[in-house]
Amino acid sequence: MAEATATSTAPVHLQIEDDLYGLDPEFVRAVEDAFEADNPAAARELAESLHYSDAADLLERINPQWRAPLVEVLRPEFDPEILTVLDENVRDEVITALGFADLAAAIVELDSDDAVLLVSQIEDPEKQTRLLDALPPDVKTVVTQGLSYPEFSAGRMMQREVVSVPAYWTVGEVLDYLRASPNLPEEFYDLFVVDPRHRPIGKIGLARLVRAKRPVRLRDLMAEEELTTVPVTADREEVAFLFRQQDLVSAPVVDGSGRLRGVITIDDIVDVIDEEAADDMLRLAGVSDTDLYSAVKDTVRSRIPWLLINLGTAIIASTVIGLFEGTLEKIIALAVLMPIVAGLGGNAGTQTLAVAVRSLATKELDADNALRVIGKEILVGMTNGAILASVIGPIAWLWFDMPMVGVVIGMAVTFNLFVAGLMGSMIPLALDKAGVDPAIGSSIFLTMCTDSLGFFAFLGLATLFLI
Amino acid sequence: MAEATATSTAPVHLQIEDDLYGLDPEFVRAVEDAFEADNPAAARELAESLHYSDAADLLERINPQWRAPLVEVLRPEFDPEILTVLDENVRDEVITALGFADLAAAIVELDSDDAVLLVSQIEDPEKQTRLLDALPPDVKTVVTQGLSYPEFSAGRMMQREVVSVPAYWTVGEVLDYLRASPNLPEEFYDLFVVDPRHRPIGKIGLARLVRAKRPVRLRDLMAEEELTTVPVTADREEVAFLFRQQDLVSAPVVDGSGRLRGVITIDDIVDVIDEEAADDMLRLAGVSDTDLYSAVKDTVRSRIPWLLINLGTAIIASTVIGLFEGTLEKIIALAVLMPIVAGLGGNAGTQTLAVAVRSLATKELDADNALRVIGKEILVGMTNGAILASVIGPIAWLWFDMPMVGVVIGMAVTFNLFVAGLMGSMIPLALDKAGVDPAIGSSIFLTMCTDSLGFFAFLGLATLFLI
Repeated sequence: MAEATATSTAPVHLQIEDDLYGLDPEFVRAVEDAFEADNPAAARELAESLHYSDAADLLERINPQWRAPLVEVLRPEFDPEILTVLDENVRDEVITALGFADLAAAIVELDSDDAVLLVSQIEDPEKQTRLLDALPPDVKTVVTQGLSYPEFSAGRMMQREVVSVPAYWTVGEVLDYLRASPNLPEEFYDLFVVDPRHRPIGKIGLARLVRAKRPVRLRDLMAEEELTTVPVTADREEVAFLFRQQDLVSAPVVDGSGRLRGVITIDDIVDVIDEEAADDMLRLAGVSDTDLYSAVKDTVRSRIPWLLINLGTAIIASTVIGLFEGTLEKIIALAVLMPIVAGLGGNAGTQTLAVAVRSLATKELDADNALRVIGKEILVGMTNGAILASVIGPIAWLWFDMPMVGVVIGMAVTFNLFVAGLMGSMIPLALDKAGVDPAIGSSIFLTMCTDSLGFFAFLGLATLFLI
Repeated sequence: MAEATATSTAPVHLQIEDDLYGLDPEFVRAVEDAFEADNPAAARELAESLHYSDAADLLERINPQWRAPLVEVLRPEFDPEILTVLDENVRDEVITALGFADLAAAIVELDSDDAVLLVSQIEDPEKQTRLLDALPPDVKTVVTQGLSYPEFSAGRMMQREVVSVPAYWTVGEVLDYLRASPNLPEEFYDLFVVDPRHRPIGKIGLARLVRAKRPVRLRDLMAEEELTTVPVTADREEVAFLFRQQDLVSAPVVDGSGRLRGVITIDDIVDVIDEEAADDMLRLAGVSDTDLYSAVKDTVRSRIPWLLINLGTAIIASTVIGLFEGTLEKIIALAVLMPIVAGLGGNAGTQTLAVAVRSLATKELDADNALRVIGKEILVGMTNGAILASVIGPIAWLWFDMPMVGVVIGMAVTFNLFVAGLMGSMIPLALDKAGVDPAIGSSIFLTMCTDSLGFFAFLGLATLFLI
């Protein structure tokens, strides 16, 4: 076979390709140019066939003055999914331009999980109520019930439309049922087998279904492993963990009495995983969200609290320096060198912190192996401290021509990297145990420790040995 | 209907539930106890029915002395998937315990994408060759070809087993074909419709297939939108972007002439998305990987280069301070306060940096809107700088009873937050443009700028106005 031969002559030395997908900046400019030339028909021609994610990107990217006109252009065939993927700052603008009637119409078209998400994101309670009242009664009931579950819970995320079948049916009966039911969700990956009380007892992936012969009973087709169900109250991070752990594409959501209430699908989980992992990075850095499309005013407001807290801890570190004013006056070299001690401690501690925060998120780190990890981090810190001391010690000695300055900074660096290893691992563990997100407060506490103790060790040792 | 009523009385004030899934520490201890009591049969009973991800977690978590005995316990029914999810440090140990014959047998059982991944992770080239030679010829060919694609490319990730069908078939013919073909992949979500030259021209989700009547032709069932294909050379981050953008569960991979070569499925993408987002956090913090299970020696070796680079930049900042020794000798208050200026700049810059790195990863930030974003960040930085100045200025004045010290630190903080906004946004953009991962080098350059310029501004202004 010619084809098989072609397959085995594998292409070697291929270059990895980047920037294959996504909206082209030139395309955005072409749409802007169309508006600028007062030619909305040309803009419509460009934008109308976009995938909803690309249309959302276009709305985000386009010069804000053309955002409302772009909504007009998209309105006749407005894909409601656009609203579910828009950045929140842009979404508010688009919703305003769209108007209540068309917004309500869009919500009716969405799957129940997206409808709940969208209504929940309208923060003004009065507007939210007005919107709910504009929905048809059945949609309003579904959305209201979805909103009654806590934010970030499985109940909020789940889609109510779910395909459930009794165990005594055959494959043939299922296929006939599926073909005859127009109201099934457009996309689903598993059938859930339920008992007479509507409790899920098994699931059948569609790949398994389509390969089975018509007379086979569902109970003989169900996966052998026990079915893992998700309580409506489960934290979305827990659900994401379950999906990753078991390589799921969908999971049944059950209420307190074990009845099937909905389904969570992998596309929602992908967003959760991406957001949670990115949120850890942003929170460690002291920002709550990517605020690329926020106004300057809103960005300032969201970032300043973190900076004020850091100002507080920096003042504490400064008071530690203040204790040693007398020493500094005598040996000004100490003032020149002291930021090195604090800085290295902060950097080493951040390394430990990032590993701990990530390992807590993936459940690799918990109370059970905490002591082992803390012990290891202390050893790593002291070893790295000794290596750094062997570099900075001689440099400091030669720079200021004072051997003892080299000895003191070496000792202080080693001590501060011990602090970094200890605190970098203990702080996130303690916050996690206290039920606080370890990514949020960790770096403030850590820097406070490595700054204050770093200055204290360096200037204290200098006072002992040099004065 | 009683059930419908129950549904609409929605549960209110539910508590979110945490810690639902994953391996119980008590379970790990029970297995350890069984080994300690020299009772491997009891350990087998506990471990043999575990899902492969849980079995992998158990191998990672268990006291290392029982790792090899645990492999013996699992060996009779060893699930090869365990190897694909193990932490690399533990995997090497497990592979050694498992031995070559059983490792080769495990690889034969895996899907081609997992087999390629596993072989690629054996870093010793000699061992890799020995392992390849131990595989049956057909498996060896598939794995060797997979390895010929660049790391992190679609070709590496794809599964070769793919379900493709011609457009002129009917739904009935497809179902008959699927039922009669025992060698299909166990799990698949889409059928790919190919032309006579085996180029994918459309796809049909299984949910759509099972709802269609038998006589319907596939060409009439294919999704309307144009099919997006993935070149074998595509970067895995690009593929992940595509999956997120279009909410895909699988995508066809094609070679240079457009022929279908394999399929990438959502479970692989979930891992990519999670790893890439977490990697950005770890790299920003100066670590290459979560090294929870690495030996102290390996952890030291992987973390020390970053710290040595930081030592270099810290020394540069210290030389800046050294320029102002004369000023510091006269006013020791400056030595006490100067870390505040540098620290606030570093923190504000890190906020900007994290947002920029994340926005580059999600393609929200690129050359097209770079200037707008840099301009905004400068404004945000200067506004936050002014706010912080209005707090620290009066404090410094009162603390040292010198009004001009307050004025000088206020000016320096405002200037340094301008630097933070400018550099925090420009550095990652410049690195990205140069083809370097912006998460890796950004924070080093940033701290160098905010430290050195912060010290320079504060001590320079003090020299001008106070001496």
